[in-house]
Amino acid sequence: MKIGFVGLGNMGGPMAANLATAGHEVTGFDPAAPMPEGVQAAASGADAARGAEVVITMLPNGDILRRVAAELIPAMAPGMVLLDCSTVDVDSARAVAAEAEAAGVLTVDAPVSGGVGGAQGGTLTFMAGGPVEAFDRVAPLLDVMGRKAVHCGPAGAGQSAKICNNMILGATMIVTCEAFALADKLGLDRQAMYDVVSTSSGQSWSITTYCPAPGIGPQSPADNDYTPGFAAELMLKDLRLAQQAAESADADTPVGALAMQLYEHFVEQEGATGRDFSAMLERFAGRGRG
Amino acid sequence: MKIGFVGLGNMGGPMAANLATAGHEVTGFDPAAPMPEGVQAAASGADAARGAEVVITMLPNGDILRRVAAELIPAMAPGMVLLDCSTVDVDSARAVAAEAEAAGVLTVDAPVSGGVGGAQGGTLTFMAGGPVEAFDRVAPLLDVMGRKAVHCGPAGAGQSAKICNNMILGATMIVTCEAFALADKLGLDRQAMYDVVSTSSGQSWSITTYCPAPGIGPQSPADNDYTPGFAAELMLKDLRLAQQAAESADADTPVGALAMQLYEHFVEQEGATGRDFSAMLERFAGRGRG
Repeated sequence: MKIGFVGLGNMGGPMAANLATAGHEVTGFDPAAPMPEGVQAAASGADAARGAEVVITMLPNGDILRRVAAELIPAMAPGMVLLDCSTVDVDSARAVAAEAEAAGVLTVDAPVSGGVGGAQGGTLTFMAGGPVEAFDRVAPLLDVMGRKAVHCGPAGAGQSAKICNNMILGATMIVTCEAFALADKLGLDRQAMYDVVSTSSGQSWSITTYCPAPGIGPQSPADNDYTPGFAAELMLKDLRLAQQAAESADADTPVGALAMQLYEHFVEQEGATGRDFSAMLERFAGRGRG
Repeated sequence: MKIGFVGLGNMGGPMAANLATAGHEVTGFDPAAPMPEGVQAAASGADAARGAEVVITMLPNGDILRRVAAELIPAMAPGMVLLDCSTVDVDSARAVAAEAEAAGVLTVDAPVSGGVGGAQGGTLTFMAGGPVEAFDRVAPLLDVMGRKAVHCGPAGAGQSAKICNNMILGATMIVTCEAFALADKLGLDRQAMYDVVSTSSGQSWSITTYCPAPGIGPQSPADNDYTPGFAAELMLKDLRLAQQAAESADADTPVGALAMQLYEHFVEQEGATGRDFSAMLERFAGRGRG
């Protein structure tokens, strides 16, 4: 397939490289990042988009996406697909979809989970929104870049699913860390705590797959001095997007809001940038009620 | 085994009946509840305790436990075991253990999860604290009353494990309900939301075993108009015990504290008494931010 790819950073770079390796004809553009192996360099985004059947974007935020999409869409032929894999606010995803629709271009919003490791290994998970027809067209590409793709609904549904999932994840990780730190102070052994919670009603992915306590449970970033994994500042970004969506949809999300505030403080006041989001355990383990 | 049983309410009654059915010689006392089938009535707590190898208590709170234990312990022979299955504060559990130890009586604190259905069916889970020797002595009784018993550590460890687990559970359920309500308002289908979250990093027991959205996922109280299950006021009790323990141990638990406040409002201001704790979804689904 003839593919344009805009945004070739830590995530987009390896994703584009995997597509090229799989035999697709990939033309890329990024004003800052190096061109990945096997990807042909374009002079601009519009240049990368021209003649492509699918144009993929992997960008840092909704404002940049809107700006880039405004350049890409006029260069795309009607009926072609714009596949945005960035994590952005729901409103931006919908605005881009509307603009594309007006030009006869199909869109899929398909934010990922799985991080840089998943991008390199081609093991990402995609949560996708957009017309089924468009999803079906890009499905073979999602299969190359990832291991799993779920179609969640119309335009914006991919972003909605991701932020809802990650809002749960952020709060669940925090309260799991709070509980481990409380257990410590109550003299409860961490292994016993893990054994009880992981097999009881407090069970979650945060403890059974990504246990924040080093040396306990499965291998996780905690066992590697909290090297990400999923960096605290990226969790903060997603929690902010969730609050932005909640505000715009008039939804009451008090625990989600507190989770955002706690990660904000963790990243901005406590120097957690570049540390895994499960390092929240150290914050609670090292601190009293204040 | 010769067993004394004090506290024969909704939980204690069927637990004592199951022990009698299993062939144990059970003498019971409760000033208010009827005597269960097969249980011999004693005139007082001390009367039920005299001559018993194991004395079991199932009481509403730590103050009552302390008062009852002060009556039971002097009536017990040294070397016998006081098995408390109540959910109480960690400090009360430890105080009773210390008082018993001074009299040569062993103690196990073994709060349960599984509710009235689990008590009737003999399928409770016990989280136990106390000397291994004492735990081993009561293990055959726990096997009759429940399906699983985990030894968590010394005196108080059972209570500690339960409140840490339930603090996680309460907060995780709330944020899962917040996310379902947010997804609704973003136009995301509930089944799609379930499919994504239950197989992603937002997964927890709260969604995969006890999904708060009716008609989605496994059978749960949501499918029965939120008939408990686990009543909101009992979740509130456990969240209060967690905060009491956190205060006493100088542990910082902001998300646990907010979960307590939200269940407090739900039960005391919004009439949730007698409804399942997962009915929190209706609260968020029906309400905006302001």
